[in-house]
Amino acid sequence: MKVKLIVSLLLLTTYFTAFSQKKQNMAVVEKGLIKISIMYPYAEGKTFNMEYYETKHMPMVAGFLGSNLIKYTIEKGIASGIPNQPLPYMAIGTFYVKSLSDYQAAIGPNRDAIRADFANYTNISPVILVSEVVK
Amino acid sequence: MKVKLIVSLLLLTTYFTAFSQKKQNMAVVEKGLIKISIMYPYAEGKTFNMEYYETKHMPMVAGFLGSNLIKYTIEKGIASGIPNQPLPYMAIGTFYVKSLSDYQAAIGPNRDAIRADFANYTNISPVILVSEVVK
Repeated sequence: MKVKLIVSLLLLTTYFTAFSQKKQNMAVVEKGLIKISIMYPYAEGKTFNMEYYETKHMPMVAGFLGSNLIKYTIEKGIASGIPNQPLPYMAIGTFYVKSLSDYQAAIGPNRDAIRADFANYTNISPVILVSEVVK
Repeated sequence: MKVKLIVSLLLLTTYFTAFSQKKQNMAVVEKGLIKISIMYPYAEGKTFNMEYYETKHMPMVAGFLGSNLIKYTIEKGIASGIPNQPLPYMAIGTFYVKSLSDYQAAIGPNRDAIRADFANYTNISPVILVSEVVK
């Protein structure tokens, strides 16, 4: 009985060691990834529906990317960090992917559907930046 | 002896459970944070020394922020995501913090030192966005 218990505890310990290791790797995996940032500049008369963007548009695009997508993020612009300057962007959405060419291949056939959905949440033409995660 | 061993293993298991839980929390903690993005627009004649930025400037600023800083990131601009458009930004550095007012209080007295360091890595005047992490 006692030996069984010891073996069980050893297995549990091993499991949690492996599990914590996995989480640690997940936390540092961004470096070297390609990041596509879709940035929506603020200007007078421009609108942005964050609720639609978060619950409909971004999940739709993320769904096109498959296992190439590591994660995606959404942020809401609050202010310029420089006093008396206008807000630079109302919102930014980003996709962290392993391969830029795989991203382009996945987006290509769905470009019309993605563009058609723009009118459902914004009247802004986004700026798009492709970058590499350095840190 | 056996009881001691069992107790040791139980303690180990508890430790790894707590440890893995901590890692899990770290992975989802970004939502709700304030993000300050320092974005360096590309233009002809503009220069940016990424090595200095990564090894000297960003660690210096991060050091001013103390426990308010959750993490900071650096990315290197590669291209516009829209064909035939110029690169929007050469580089972006970001700070994820818990409190904007604590960030401002920490940066204030160090603003001159931060600005004086700009000339060591770039001749670009950055755009600065304060945003809230939605997802």
